[in-house]
Amino acid sequence: MAHIDLLLTGGDLLTVNKPFDRFSPGALAIHDGVIEAVGPAREITDTYTADEVVDCQGCAIIPGLVNGHTHAPMTLLRGLADDLRLDVWLMGYMMPVEREFVRPDFCWLGAQLACAEMFRSGVTCYGDMYYYEEAVADATAEAGMRAVCAQSILKFPTPDSASFDAGLRLAQDFVTRWVGHDLILPAVGPHAAYTATAELLRGSTQLARAYDVPIHIHIAETEEEVSQQVETHQRPVVSWLEDQGLFEAPVTAHHCVHLDDDQLRVLRHHRVGITHNPSSNLKLASGFAPVTRMLALGIPVSVGTDGAASNNDLDMFEEMRLAALLAKGVSDDPTALPARQALAMATRLGAEALHVAHQTGSLEVGKQADVAVVDLERIHLTPRFEHGSDGGDSLASALVYSGKSTDVRHVLCNGRWVMRDRELLTLDVEELRRRAAKVAGRIDTFLAAREENVLSKLVAIGGVDRVETFEVQVRIRFDDAAVVEEVLEREHLTPVRTSRRHQYDTYFLFGERDTSRLRYREDEVLAETVDGQIENVVYRLTLIGETKHREFPRSILLSRSRFDAPATHSRRFYREYFQPEDEIRVHKHRRRYHVRYGGTDFALNLDRVTRPPLPGVYLEITSRTWSAQDAERKAQLMAELLDLFGVATREIVRAEYVELAADQLGSPAPNP
Amino acid sequence: MAHIDLLLTGGDLLTVNKPFDRFSPGALAIHDGVIEAVGPAREITDTYTADEVVDCQGCAIIPGLVNGHTHAPMTLLRGLADDLRLDVWLMGYMMPVEREFVRPDFCWLGAQLACAEMFRSGVTCYGDMYYYEEAVADATAEAGMRAVCAQSILKFPTPDSASFDAGLRLAQDFVTRWVGHDLILPAVGPHAAYTATAELLRGSTQLARAYDVPIHIHIAETEEEVSQQVETHQRPVVSWLEDQGLFEAPVTAHHCVHLDDDQLRVLRHHRVGITHNPSSNLKLASGFAPVTRMLALGIPVSVGTDGAASNNDLDMFEEMRLAALLAKGVSDDPTALPARQALAMATRLGAEALHVAHQTGSLEVGKQADVAVVDLERIHLTPRFEHGSDGGDSLASALVYSGKSTDVRHVLCNGRWVMRDRELLTLDVEELRRRAAKVAGRIDTFLAAREENVLSKLVAIGGVDRVETFEVQVRIRFDDAAVVEEVLEREHLTPVRTSRRHQYDTYFLFGERDTSRLRYREDEVLAETVDGQIENVVYRLTLIGETKHREFPRSILLSRSRFDAPATHSRRFYREYFQPEDEIRVHKHRRRYHVRYGGTDFALNLDRVTRPPLPGVYLEITSRTWSAQDAERKAQLMAELLDLFGVATREIVRAEYVELAADQLGSPAPNP
Repeated sequence: MAHIDLLLTGGDLLTVNKPFDRFSPGALAIHDGVIEAVGPAREITDTYTADEVVDCQGCAIIPGLVNGHTHAPMTLLRGLADDLRLDVWLMGYMMPVEREFVRPDFCWLGAQLACAEMFRSGVTCYGDMYYYEEAVADATAEAGMRAVCAQSILKFPTPDSASFDAGLRLAQDFVTRWVGHDLILPAVGPHAAYTATAELLRGSTQLARAYDVPIHIHIAETEEEVSQQVETHQRPVVSWLEDQGLFEAPVTAHHCVHLDDDQLRVLRHHRVGITHNPSSNLKLASGFAPVTRMLALGIPVSVGTDGAASNNDLDMFEEMRLAALLAKGVSDDPTALPARQALAMATRLGAEALHVAHQTGSLEVGKQADVAVVDLERIHLTPRFEHGSDGGDSLASALVYSGKSTDVRHVLCNGRWVMRDRELLTLDVEELRRRAAKVAGRIDTFLAAREENVLSKLVAIGGVDRVETFEVQVRIRFDDAAVVEEVLEREHLTPVRTSRRHQYDTYFLFGERDTSRLRYREDEVLAETVDGQIENVVYRLTLIGETKHREFPRSILLSRSRFDAPATHSRRFYREYFQPEDEIRVHKHRRRYHVRYGGTDFALNLDRVTRPPLPGVYLEITSRTWSAQDAERKAQLMAELLDLFGVATREIVRAEYVELAADQLGSPAPNP
Repeated sequence: MAHIDLLLTGGDLLTVNKPFDRFSPGALAIHDGVIEAVGPAREITDTYTADEVVDCQGCAIIPGLVNGHTHAPMTLLRGLADDLRLDVWLMGYMMPVEREFVRPDFCWLGAQLACAEMFRSGVTCYGDMYYYEEAVADATAEAGMRAVCAQSILKFPTPDSASFDAGLRLAQDFVTRWVGHDLILPAVGPHAAYTATAELLRGSTQLARAYDVPIHIHIAETEEEVSQQVETHQRPVVSWLEDQGLFEAPVTAHHCVHLDDDQLRVLRHHRVGITHNPSSNLKLASGFAPVTRMLALGIPVSVGTDGAASNNDLDMFEEMRLAALLAKGVSDDPTALPARQALAMATRLGAEALHVAHQTGSLEVGKQADVAVVDLERIHLTPRFEHGSDGGDSLASALVYSGKSTDVRHVLCNGRWVMRDRELLTLDVEELRRRAAKVAGRIDTFLAAREENVLSKLVAIGGVDRVETFEVQVRIRFDDAAVVEEVLEREHLTPVRTSRRHQYDTYFLFGERDTSRLRYREDEVLAETVDGQIENVVYRLTLIGETKHREFPRSILLSRSRFDAPATHSRRFYREYFQPEDEIRVHKHRRRYHVRYGGTDFALNLDRVTRPPLPGVYLEITSRTWSAQDAERKAQLMAELLDLFGVATREIVRAEYVELAADQLGSPAPNP
């Protein structure tokens, strides 16, 4: 009789080794954190005595689950913003909040919270990718959890690095410190092809190869990303990454939703592991990953929860069930991805995908003792059948299709108890919950402040400067455009230059909430040729506050636009982000004359409003200004111009186009 | 101060009424099983004193969930057979087991087990449809659960009715007994259009209208069903049901996966409620129901788990989450079916779909007190945000995207506590589990017995008789077909009739498991014209046991085919149901001459084997027989025929075609 540390016996043991051996009742002998023996209970208990013997009757003994992909610290952002489109979610909420809050202590706390939730769902190993990965690794190691921790690197400034060079240095420091740790495998995380440069990827690969650690990268998560990539590099994304030499390191690729067989074969050739994240892909409507194809090609595919900000939990029981169910629905084949395979993806194949299969993923002699003991005596697991190949199918089916994370009773990670009878032994849950609530409170305050008005919400998404501009302006209606041309000629107001354009304006109105208007303008600049082809399209976003800053004689107005910048997102993005109460569209054809008068530049816009159709034409005389004194002088010159055009005061239109449009449409008059 | 029975106070209360009012902290005043008041905690506690006051701090107070569609007794078949195609699952497993086991006590036990599981996930009302619905209603009422119980009626014999007339009578008895019950609303359950006749539907409608009770019916669950329906009635399924007057009664339609907008509008017009069953639709690969369209059209859509045999649990938290996630993925729009709407589907809209919205589905004054109290102080619900419309969005999001059924702490149904601190008060869980395990054991034994050999497995799926036939047979190889024709002419063996056919045989082989072979034959009968068009296609299934029952001189064999019948399922069905170890295909062109010789009928089959290609032609002389004496006489006549053909003994082929094929293909020789 050999004496060992620990004996788990009497349970329904699924090894999830390749032949899917089941021992019922089975036993597991563990010594020094390593699996010493696995087999029929009688055989093992006849061979070993142990310091601790745990009776697992009524339970399944299975490998600890492997969560292939998450961003552990984002657990602190769980439920922050849901039911939004990816860009609104990411650029409207995640990134601004991350910019403001992500620091090492945030990452440490989020990672501990994530470990607590994962242990409680039977997870003993996970793949992570975030900023300040040092803090994630430290929090994870302290929890006693196994993880592959990838330090994110992007070509943009991130919460932890001002540049990707700094990111690479940070990653190298991190890898150096953690390589060889018994729980943490450090990794290099170039975030994705579309957020990387060729240099960034080559630097990452070099680093990964130098320390023999894996690379984690998001690949082909959305269709848009894939088509943009092809446009930029004239190569499919996987091929382009291959060109950069990325796959010379061991790689784990996240998502891979939009890849065809050819691209998958490239991944297989390079022994790349894939993580499949069904909840996240559904929630963000990223598409349906071709999981059955990946598996058929022999690629190790892991199941991942992705971050709790897009899931919104880290429940691997749910995730493996969803992987199994979704594959059937998508492939129109109910025999696709059977329970056994789903369980293997959440364990052995997951470990392979993360390049840690030598340590974990199945209950086999020589592997580390990462084990979940699952209570089968639950009402939702009643009854159970023994029907099917040796009953192994039935047990896998019970775990995958009916099991819940809350059925996990005990968890052993690296041979150490981290949960007994659902009590976490290495983490202080109440303390974590208290601290997390505090962080959430601060984030709530931050978001509430930025929601106060449209301007602060606009500033929050960043990427644009806050510049205030002033304009002196007057608007006159004529029945006919010819009048204007005539006057220009008669008065020798030769335009310095002219332009023609179609302007498609969308005004977002906010009712009581905010008196500002946000104008999204698509400016189609037309060529000065007979056919007037579109030469250029310019998108601008303008926040218009109190329009009438000051009024001069003859209704000449000094107006202020508080913010004016290129519109880097779509109109749809701004609509979903700002959630206006109303929206009015104004389309017009504009002929613009740049003239000099009294030594001063003026723009004369001759506008025909086509949506909603307004009769006549409008002449807008406008000039930018930077001081009150300059404004006064320009207003004086404008009054002279009005005289040249023979404008009677009654022809002066004080209303803005959006107001005229609202009037025409019978909408309530927009603010202010 | 009014005095009432029960006060729930201090919780985060979501009414799920139409404006989605939230009170945080809120309170609920309950008297005589009815909601007396709902509002801010302070306001309610200032107005009422109560016999019992429950502090719900740290919890959400929400309406009890409504599970729109299940087959409660099938909870006893949970996990019996998974990862199979619908027909194999239904006809190979569910129906044979139901035929054998479904009795009132089975249904009673299954329904109680279902109620236990549903209470534990916060469900207080469900829609059921099964056999012996009397037992289901009784078990449910005893548990203290609310339900709409539909007695299934099919045109085929069912476990509780030999004919649909008997089914209608049973339904009438059932409805009469239960109508007016305070928990159970009896209903009539014509199973589906494709399992009904027009008379069955009219009878069901008459019955439902006479007692003013709902009808439950499956509509358009699979694409196949929909196209078959159109073929049979030349009308889309909904229109055909409308023609039968079905919608003159209040109807709840289950699944509705394959309906276009026109058909959905018909349902809306008739105020039909729909149940959406996402897990079941995925698991059986039935398709993706157009849920967002249904909701946009204003149809009340409920979420349902369907039976535990195709889900495999009754977890409404999972189901509402999946409904929300799947709608986004399928519509390619992450803003589709937001958390609030999913929660409404699982409560208020669910009650509307089941035609019980006057009683349950939201926390509103006058409704019955059906309430779930959900613990929010869980690690997987940490942190929570207050961001979004009054925080109601955040709470809905937490419940839908992160909540678990195991977070439900207390449940009140019809004003009565049925669960406190996760302890079920009206059901004996241990006793239910013990009894369910016993039933499962008996089913396991039944299935094991039928799996013993191919014949018993074949008999188990029924629909065919077990007939043993015997044949006297000899097979000879010739180099050339002309020889045979010459002999027939020379010997004046004028054929009574002839036929030509292509025969596509698939032999399923079972290796060590069973020495029988199962032959699936597709017989293309060709016209006796020059162009030889296909006149008819016949599918037959033949189980071939010990082929060589007896041998006469000159290798004339008496063979036995133990089973021979029309093949009513597809080859794919038999393959997936029997799971052969190997499969060999033999294709041949057969010319058959029916001749009389010695006053006896013989068939002469002149065969050219094309797959795998075998050289020469084969002549099979064969005759059916019913007795040993008759066999002897026929063998004697056959020996004479062999002489007429000048056959040398070495030309006689003792091997079957499948053996010759296996030899040609280099496969291991098939048994026996």
